[in-house]
Amino acid sequence: MIVAELIRKKRDGGELSQSEIQNLVKGFSDSSIPDYQISAWLMSVFLKGMSDAEVVHLTKAMRDSGEIFDWADLLGADGAARVADKHSTGGVGDKVSVMLAPLASCLGLKVPMMSGRGLSFTGGTVDKLEGIPGFEMRLPRSKMVSNLKSLGVCMMSQSERMCPADRKLYALRDVTGTVESLPLITASILSKKAAAGIKNLVLDVKCGTAAFMTSLDEARALAQSLVRVARLLDIQCKAIITRMSEPLGSQIGNRNEILECEWILKNDFPTREHQELAAPLKELTLRLTAEMALMAGERRDLASTVHELEMLINSGQAFECYQAMLKAQGVQLKSYRQKMLLETKSFEFKATRAGYLNEIASREIGLAGCLVGIGRSTAEDKIQPGVSFEVLVRCGQKIELGQTLLRARLKKANDFAQLEGYFDRAFKIDRLLSYKQSSLILEEVT
Amino acid sequence: MIVAELIRKKRDGGELSQSEIQNLVKGFSDSSIPDYQISAWLMSVFLKGMSDAEVVHLTKAMRDSGEIFDWADLLGADGAARVADKHSTGGVGDKVSVMLAPLASCLGLKVPMMSGRGLSFTGGTVDKLEGIPGFEMRLPRSKMVSNLKSLGVCMMSQSERMCPADRKLYALRDVTGTVESLPLITASILSKKAAAGIKNLVLDVKCGTAAFMTSLDEARALAQSLVRVARLLDIQCKAIITRMSEPLGSQIGNRNEILECEWILKNDFPTREHQELAAPLKELTLRLTAEMALMAGERRDLASTVHELEMLINSGQAFECYQAMLKAQGVQLKSYRQKMLLETKSFEFKATRAGYLNEIASREIGLAGCLVGIGRSTAEDKIQPGVSFEVLVRCGQKIELGQTLLRARLKKANDFAQLEGYFDRAFKIDRLLSYKQSSLILEEVT
Repeated sequence: MIVAELIRKKRDGGELSQSEIQNLVKGFSDSSIPDYQISAWLMSVFLKGMSDAEVVHLTKAMRDSGEIFDWADLLGADGAARVADKHSTGGVGDKVSVMLAPLASCLGLKVPMMSGRGLSFTGGTVDKLEGIPGFEMRLPRSKMVSNLKSLGVCMMSQSERMCPADRKLYALRDVTGTVESLPLITASILSKKAAAGIKNLVLDVKCGTAAFMTSLDEARALAQSLVRVARLLDIQCKAIITRMSEPLGSQIGNRNEILECEWILKNDFPTREHQELAAPLKELTLRLTAEMALMAGERRDLASTVHELEMLINSGQAFECYQAMLKAQGVQLKSYRQKMLLETKSFEFKATRAGYLNEIASREIGLAGCLVGIGRSTAEDKIQPGVSFEVLVRCGQKIELGQTLLRARLKKANDFAQLEGYFDRAFKIDRLLSYKQSSLILEEVT
Repeated sequence: MIVAELIRKKRDGGELSQSEIQNLVKGFSDSSIPDYQISAWLMSVFLKGMSDAEVVHLTKAMRDSGEIFDWADLLGADGAARVADKHSTGGVGDKVSVMLAPLASCLGLKVPMMSGRGLSFTGGTVDKLEGIPGFEMRLPRSKMVSNLKSLGVCMMSQSERMCPADRKLYALRDVTGTVESLPLITASILSKKAAAGIKNLVLDVKCGTAAFMTSLDEARALAQSLVRVARLLDIQCKAIITRMSEPLGSQIGNRNEILECEWILKNDFPTREHQELAAPLKELTLRLTAEMALMAGERRDLASTVHELEMLINSGQAFECYQAMLKAQGVQLKSYRQKMLLETKSFEFKATRAGYLNEIASREIGLAGCLVGIGRSTAEDKIQPGVSFEVLVRCGQKIELGQTLLRARLKKANDFAQLEGYFDRAFKIDRLLSYKQSSLILEEVT
C-alpha cells in the first residue's frame, strides 16, 4: 500500500476500500504512517467527502483499535437487547444524561453510558458527575457489569483503552482545520458507541446559536448521516433535532447542574421560578428516555411512557433509582449533599436597559464559563466544580431596567469583571419584541 | 498566528496575506510548524487553488529562504539586463540546455544556468553535464561571476543553499499527493529562478504523453500561470508550449546526449540518419536561444537571429563557445572525448511486425532508462553515464518486420531482458497509418 496513492484517490474524489481505510487507521495508530500523510488525507476527506460505505469502514477501524464490549456475552441475549444509550452533540446547560440514565433504568433498560468531558462552550457529563463528591467514573469492568445487571445503569468516562485511534485522530483534526467534517464527526461519534456495544441509540442533535450545528440544514445533515451509518453498523438509531439557543435549565456549572437534576428528579424546586426555568429540560429528558424505551422494545407508546416517567418522579422512585446509581458508584448518600456546598461569592448581572429579551446567545455564556472553571478552553484546563452561573430569564420575557439576568457564583471577586463583556453579548434586549417562540423539538430523523 | 486558522481560511476558499504565507514558510523551514499542519494546508491549496497574489507571496517566501543572486551588484546594470535563462518542464531526450547556454553566450547574453537532476522518466541537465569527464558543476561564487563576465555562461547544479524551503516543501508534497498543483508548481519553478536573479526567462512547457502535462489545456494553464506570476515578480517571461511524445533527438543517456549536442554544434553527424533524427532538437534549441536574445533586447528579429545561430554553428564559433565553457568548468579539452568512450554491450530492439509507427510512447523509454542507470526512480539512485538508448525511427515512418527500432548500450547483457516490455509498449506499430504530424511548437504564451 502506497499511502500517497490513497491520498490521491480521495483527493480526486474516489472511494477507498475497507482494507485501504483499515490500513490507514492501523498505520496511523502504530505511527508507521506519519501524521503529515494522515492530515493530507483528512483535508481531502474534508473537501471531497466520504461515501457512507467509507464512513462505515472508518468507524469500524476506529472501533477495532481498542477495547470492545459485547453485552450478549456479558448480560445474555435478553439483557443485550435492552442495552441503550443517548448521545447529544453538546450545548450549554445540557444535563439530560444525569437524569436520563437512572430514569431509563427505572423502565428496565440497561444503560452503560460512556460520557466525555466538556470543551469550549459545551459542558460534559463526566465533569458534572465528578461534581458529586465520591462519584467514581473509572470502575473495573466486573463492577460495571454487575451494576448493569443489578441496577441497569453504569456511568463511565471514556477510557483510554476504547477507540484510541479516534482520540488520536481527533487531536490531529483539531490542529489541522479538519474538525467540522460530517463523515469524520459521524465516524467519531459512532465508533465510541459501537465499541461500547450499544444496540439502541437515541441522538439529541442540537441546533442553534449555542450548538455546533447552528442551522437546521446542518443539523439535519448530521442527524441523517448518523442515522444512516448507525443502521449500516446494525445499531438501531433515531435522532431528535432540538433547539439550543437558551441554556437548558437555569443552572450552568457542574455542581449546580447536579442540583437542578435532583430538583427535577424529586419534583422539588427552590422556587416556582426555578421550576419554570427547568421545564424544557425536564420535557427533553423525559422525551429522550421514552424514545429509548420504545426503541429497545420495552414500551410501545410515547405519550404513555412520558406519563409513566412523570409518575415515577412524583412517587419518588426516580430519585431512588438515581441515588442507587450514586451509591453503586461510590457516593456516600448521607454526606455528599453537604460536601457540595462550597463557599463562593455571588454577583449579579443586571439589565442596563428595559425592553424585551429577544435572544440569549448561550455560546457566550459557555465561553465565559471557560474563564472561571465551569468549562475548559483546552483539554488541560482545570474544572472548578462549585463555580456556576444561574440564568434567571427566558427569551420573550419583558425586562425591567436593573433586573437581574444572571447570578454568578465565583471563587474570586475580580473574576466577575472579565465576564461582563460576554454577558453583555449574551443577553439581547430590545425595545420591541422580535423573539419568535419555536418548539423545543424541531424535527425527528429516523 | 494560529496555524489551524490559516488552514481553515484556505480550506474555505479564502486568500492568505503576504505575512500569513511568509509565516507558514518560515515556520515550516525552522520546523516550528509541524509537517502535519503544512500538509493539511498543501491539500487545501491543491483543492481550493491560490490567487496569483498568494503564489507571488509563496514564491518570494521560498526565494528568501536561502542564498540570492543580485546580478546588478555582481555584473553592473548593463550585464544584469542581459542575464537570461531557460526552463523546461522536462521530457525524454531533452538536451536543449547543453547547447542553448553556450549559443546564448555567443549572442552576448549572460546565462547563469541553474539546473537540476533527472527524476522518473525525465532527464536532468546536471546528469548530462556530469557525463563529461572533469566537468565541475559546483564552482565557487567568485569563479561563477568571473566565468559569466568573461564567457557569458556558467552551468551550475542547484545548491543546497538556494531555496531550501522549496526543496523541503517538495519532499513533503511528494508523499502527500500534492505535487500536481498549478500554484505550487508555479511557485517552485519561479522561486529558484528568482533566487538565481534571472530577469529574462524563456519557458519550454512540454506537452504530450512523455511530459508532466499531457494535454494542451493543462500545458497552457501552467504556461499562463508561470508567465502571469513571473511578471508580478518583475521577471520578463514568455512560454513556448512544445510537443513531447517522440524523444528529442535520437540519443537518450547522459554521455550520448552530450555527443548528440556536439554533433549539432559542429554540424557534423555520424550519419545522415542521425542528422535527420536530430533536426527537431536543433530547431527547438535555436528557437529558444533566439527568444532569449529578443527578450533581453540583444536582438530584434526572430528569423534573422535563428539564421545567425545557424551561421555561428556552420562557422565553428558555436562549438568554440561550447568548448570555452567546458574548459572554464574544468574539462581537459584534449582528452575528455577519449574518456567518454566506455565499453558497453550493444543490443538491438527489432520490430516484431511490419506496418506504420503511429506513436513512440517516450515515457516508457524514460522509465526503462531508470532500470539501467540512464535515469533514476528515486533521488538516491546512481547514474551510469555510459549507458544509452538510441532511437532510430520516427513517428509516421513505414517499418519493416525485423527493422531495428532502438539500440541499447548496456553494462550487462542480462539487463536487456527487463527492458523489452517497456520497448514493446513504447513503439506502436499498426497496419494502417493513423499518426498525424503536428508541429514541434504548439503555442506561444506571452
